[in-house]
Amino acid sequence: MLYLWKLFSLIMIKVKEKLLEQIDSPADLKKLLPDDLPAVCDELRDFIIDAVSTNPGHFGASLGVVELTVALHYIYNTPYDLLVWDVGHQAYGHKILTGRRENFHTNRKFKGISGFPRRDESEYDTFGVGHSSTSISAALGMALASNIKKEKERKVVAIIGDGAMTGGMAFEALNNVGASKANLLVILNDNNMAIDPNSGVIGQYLLNISKSHTYNKVKKEVWEGLGKLDGFGKSTRKFIQKNQHALKNLLLKENNLFEAFDFRYFGPIDGHDVKYLTEVLTDLQDIPGPKLLHIVTKKGKGFVHAEINQTKFHAPGLFDKVTGEILAGKYKPGEAGKFQNVFGKTLLELAEMNDRIIGITPAMPSGCSMDLMIEKMPHRAFDVGIAEQHAVTFAAGLATQGMVPFCNIYSTFMQRAYDQVIHDVAIQDLPVIFCLDRGGLVGEDGATHHGAFDMAYMRTVPNMIVAAPMDEVELRNMMYTAQSEENTHPFSIRYPRGNGSIPEWKIPFKKVPVGKARQLAQGEKLAILTIGKSGVFAQEAVKQLAEENIKVSHYDMRFVKPLDEELLETIFSKYSKILTVEDGVIKGGFGSAILEFMAERGFSAQVKLLGIPDRFIEHGSLDDLYEICGINWKGIFRAAREMLVK
Amino acid sequence: MLYLWKLFSLIMIKVKEKLLEQIDSPADLKKLLPDDLPAVCDELRDFIIDAVSTNPGHFGASLGVVELTVALHYIYNTPYDLLVWDVGHQAYGHKILTGRRENFHTNRKFKGISGFPRRDESEYDTFGVGHSSTSISAALGMALASNIKKEKERKVVAIIGDGAMTGGMAFEALNNVGASKANLLVILNDNNMAIDPNSGVIGQYLLNISKSHTYNKVKKEVWEGLGKLDGFGKSTRKFIQKNQHALKNLLLKENNLFEAFDFRYFGPIDGHDVKYLTEVLTDLQDIPGPKLLHIVTKKGKGFVHAEINQTKFHAPGLFDKVTGEILAGKYKPGEAGKFQNVFGKTLLELAEMNDRIIGITPAMPSGCSMDLMIEKMPHRAFDVGIAEQHAVTFAAGLATQGMVPFCNIYSTFMQRAYDQVIHDVAIQDLPVIFCLDRGGLVGEDGATHHGAFDMAYMRTVPNMIVAAPMDEVELRNMMYTAQSEENTHPFSIRYPRGNGSIPEWKIPFKKVPVGKARQLAQGEKLAILTIGKSGVFAQEAVKQLAEENIKVSHYDMRFVKPLDEELLETIFSKYSKILTVEDGVIKGGFGSAILEFMAERGFSAQVKLLGIPDRFIEHGSLDDLYEICGINWKGIFRAAREMLVK
Repeated sequence: MLYLWKLFSLIMIKVKEKLLEQIDSPADLKKLLPDDLPAVCDELRDFIIDAVSTNPGHFGASLGVVELTVALHYIYNTPYDLLVWDVGHQAYGHKILTGRRENFHTNRKFKGISGFPRRDESEYDTFGVGHSSTSISAALGMALASNIKKEKERKVVAIIGDGAMTGGMAFEALNNVGASKANLLVILNDNNMAIDPNSGVIGQYLLNISKSHTYNKVKKEVWEGLGKLDGFGKSTRKFIQKNQHALKNLLLKENNLFEAFDFRYFGPIDGHDVKYLTEVLTDLQDIPGPKLLHIVTKKGKGFVHAEINQTKFHAPGLFDKVTGEILAGKYKPGEAGKFQNVFGKTLLELAEMNDRIIGITPAMPSGCSMDLMIEKMPHRAFDVGIAEQHAVTFAAGLATQGMVPFCNIYSTFMQRAYDQVIHDVAIQDLPVIFCLDRGGLVGEDGATHHGAFDMAYMRTVPNMIVAAPMDEVELRNMMYTAQSEENTHPFSIRYPRGNGSIPEWKIPFKKVPVGKARQLAQGEKLAILTIGKSGVFAQEAVKQLAEENIKVSHYDMRFVKPLDEELLETIFSKYSKILTVEDGVIKGGFGSAILEFMAERGFSAQVKLLGIPDRFIEHGSLDDLYEICGINWKGIFRAAREMLVK
Repeated sequence: MLYLWKLFSLIMIKVKEKLLEQIDSPADLKKLLPDDLPAVCDELRDFIIDAVSTNPGHFGASLGVVELTVALHYIYNTPYDLLVWDVGHQAYGHKILTGRRENFHTNRKFKGISGFPRRDESEYDTFGVGHSSTSISAALGMALASNIKKEKERKVVAIIGDGAMTGGMAFEALNNVGASKANLLVILNDNNMAIDPNSGVIGQYLLNISKSHTYNKVKKEVWEGLGKLDGFGKSTRKFIQKNQHALKNLLLKENNLFEAFDFRYFGPIDGHDVKYLTEVLTDLQDIPGPKLLHIVTKKGKGFVHAEINQTKFHAPGLFDKVTGEILAGKYKPGEAGKFQNVFGKTLLELAEMNDRIIGITPAMPSGCSMDLMIEKMPHRAFDVGIAEQHAVTFAAGLATQGMVPFCNIYSTFMQRAYDQVIHDVAIQDLPVIFCLDRGGLVGEDGATHHGAFDMAYMRTVPNMIVAAPMDEVELRNMMYTAQSEENTHPFSIRYPRGNGSIPEWKIPFKKVPVGKARQLAQGEKLAILTIGKSGVFAQEAVKQLAEENIKVSHYDMRFVKPLDEELLETIFSKYSKILTVEDGVIKGGFGSAILEFMAERGFSAQVKLLGIPDRFIEHGSLDDLYEICGINWKGIFRAAREMLVK
């Protein structure tokens, strides 16, 4: 019976997917009738559910924009017309419709297609993304280039979520688009979620608009009325203009934020009604200047488990597409847990002991595990939205009043707040604690998300303590050290994505002396100096070398700055060969700091720097990426042996 | 007769300044009657005009907020209440009223008081500034700290200009303040100017509000009505709330941007009516939650030349306070001109030859001399406002469509767009040209403005070409090279503030081979490797060394990345002593790149790195600062001689 049912399902899927199978490019989509589009959406949604349940990736966001994606490629003349997806983890449907359906099973895999739009992957990917809030700026550049090149027919559309809209640069862009009068459509995809529920006022503001029933009802009638006026370009436009204005004044109780930026505002409309979307998009093509279309969607739409638990299904890993059970990433007893959990639990523990501690995260409460503190201490832990710049300066303001802010920002996103780190924290020497999660290579998210640069850019900043724990216990103790009254400087602690190496990390706190390293293995001739998790790989390399009767020393340096100069004096007196290892860029990084120390003190030695080379590293499993950079245990092993043979 | 007039003026000034002389702290100010305040404002204004005409500094901004400054310190209980000045070049009045009047003649001088608020200078300076748009974030941190500490009486006020309001992080902060319901007053000082006239929509938006006469008239009456209700705390509040709401709905045709952020909006009011300001500020103290007071002021108010020519009088240098003639900074024939002029003129010249060139500046058209192009080619050159992040990604968008954007951002402000440089430009390997003006030490503006970090943080970025011209001809030729079709990479060119060394720089263009250095002096044993303008100092040092019969070689490396590896091979084969010189941080900088090259190729040599040490360098004349960092010709001379003696 079960067998028959499975067979039947299989046949149904085959039958159902007949439309999608025919679509190898948007040209194929355009051959269909408007009435076919809902079926295409259903097939596309099923395809995404199938694909992501077996090959992990971002999930909820792409399900939410299935209808929008189909409508955009149906109406616009892509790739001549330019679609710019903000963040880009919602672009799976876009990829599937633009020639990458057959290849989609390689999504996020090493040498496979990227989980984000990339210019070098497809001509339909107009702008590479990964970080948030860039689309409107990029789209304005494209629109003005078209103006200058007198390509008047070319249309540019930026698609941005309400979460991304909280990023400051989106506002900088709105301010400039309005002034430019560029012919540009911004589609605001409003699901009141980033990865976690959206914070700040904007989310509430959009919700208020969406909930105004009278407004929505009349709007819908106006749009439907427009349908009957098809073919009357100019009069359609006038009709919209007139009615929009009257409507707003009459019905929209809230003032409209976007109109303050000289955008024509349209919406909110149902983002899951694909036929209606195509009608609206068609109408909007006739309206010149900056326009904003506000659509309301549900993240995870069409997969009930994702609709209910949107945060978990943002990027769920492997899951059962029937039961909705999330299969991957479960903690197994005895296994070392994630660094982020050590952060989250330790932060709460410390905050219970030290009432000056404040938690700050820009839109990553579940990603960095600060949700534990936010839940327990909502008045002392803040999700500030996608707003890294504000997060840092807000922390600085708190520190001026004697608070101890833990500002947790993914390494790659900290690049957004570099100026605030220098200007607002370091110049004033304020004891803000930066916890940089996802430091080093991150794996499947690829080039946009690797935390490759942090140690290099942080160590150039005066007053800044730059620490990187090798394991969970070290992370815990560094956090403990940073919040103690003895610390009077900005203190940055970077740690990697994924699991640590010590299951039983929850042991009593112990201060880590700032600028003091530790020796982990004693050998001769060659010393391996590691920073952060690279030390774990080095330990394995040391073990393997010992099996070949090669004994080397290993030091976990702990701090990129201040360096343990006393110990380094000893090391350079004893060893003529030094191997440095870091999960970060070589240029300007930890190894480079060691070279500066040598030059300053007049030491000479053969030094080899292992780290991320001077090119952007693509996506793939962490194992693959560590291997190509030569910073796994094998890479360290090979490098050490080679230096000793020489 | 003239003598008598001068004597008379002098007596009059003495008589006039009797009030200001009694004010050594806000407590003294509070002893005066409200009717005395206009006189205090007059005296304060005269004091600032006197001081800045003889000791150059920022000018127009402080004149514009004289009344606001007096009103704030009269009404608020500073320093217990916290005033946060955005940018801070408008805080001269604040400094003069808070104990720094006697010392104000040392403003911006080496070891003197800073041109910006600084926490280590005065307890009245709650937050160090210099860069824009930070005040609301910092103030929110302070307000929430007060909440947590249950200091309910403490009030926090952020004072921000309309120019600074275009910076994305100000919006990030507004979004968070609204959500926090913090008891915080933001005063929007609206003069429709940053340094140059404000760009973007916000400026126009504020102007529209200000110009609505009916609205203003009725507002004024309401406020005056309030005066009569003094002492009725609660009813006053209710009265304001009720009337504000009704008023707005009736009279304000524009929707209110700030109310979308859940701020209570008040204004616009005349920012030059000091008594009225004190009344309004008093009333606002009773209203809880986030409030925004919009005041309209004139930049340069009270000094007619500054009112007329606001851009020139932003920071005019020495000027005649009677005639308004600007005395300093005039070009003298035969003297080398400013690097910025070489940039501005060359950009226009290139743009006339290459119609793909686009100019982009975030609010510095006159500061970087892009005003020349904006005037001639308004459709191809854009002032995007204080919005560095947008500027960079906008440039990336243009580059995707084959345009050649020259994005000119002061080195210190480029820190704000580091993520966009990496994520939107470098990962996609787009040929955007970054011109980083004010690279290296900048002198009197001090720690917040030194372009110290750029070479270090730019060289860590894959695909990025990092160039620094030694002189004007090199700058010109690097710009020419960067815009040529041969260049397919992001190309950053950093050059210093102030004058170059070649008066006759306008000679025919010549391409600079990317990654190729040049030798400027031939000697033995020691090679000096310089980058950028440091080469000019090295030339002098080489000359002086020659006079002592010490012959050293000198190479202008031109590129931090790619390095001239072929030449470096030769250099390290020939010389055992290497001295690197850069006007940038040593940690991770140019010298560090040379050390990495050595380690990679297995060279050994005695290497000394000269550059900015690992601490924040204060304000002072460039000569003073080069001397303390040891990167003037004397420093190079000393270091070279010492290395050779060893």
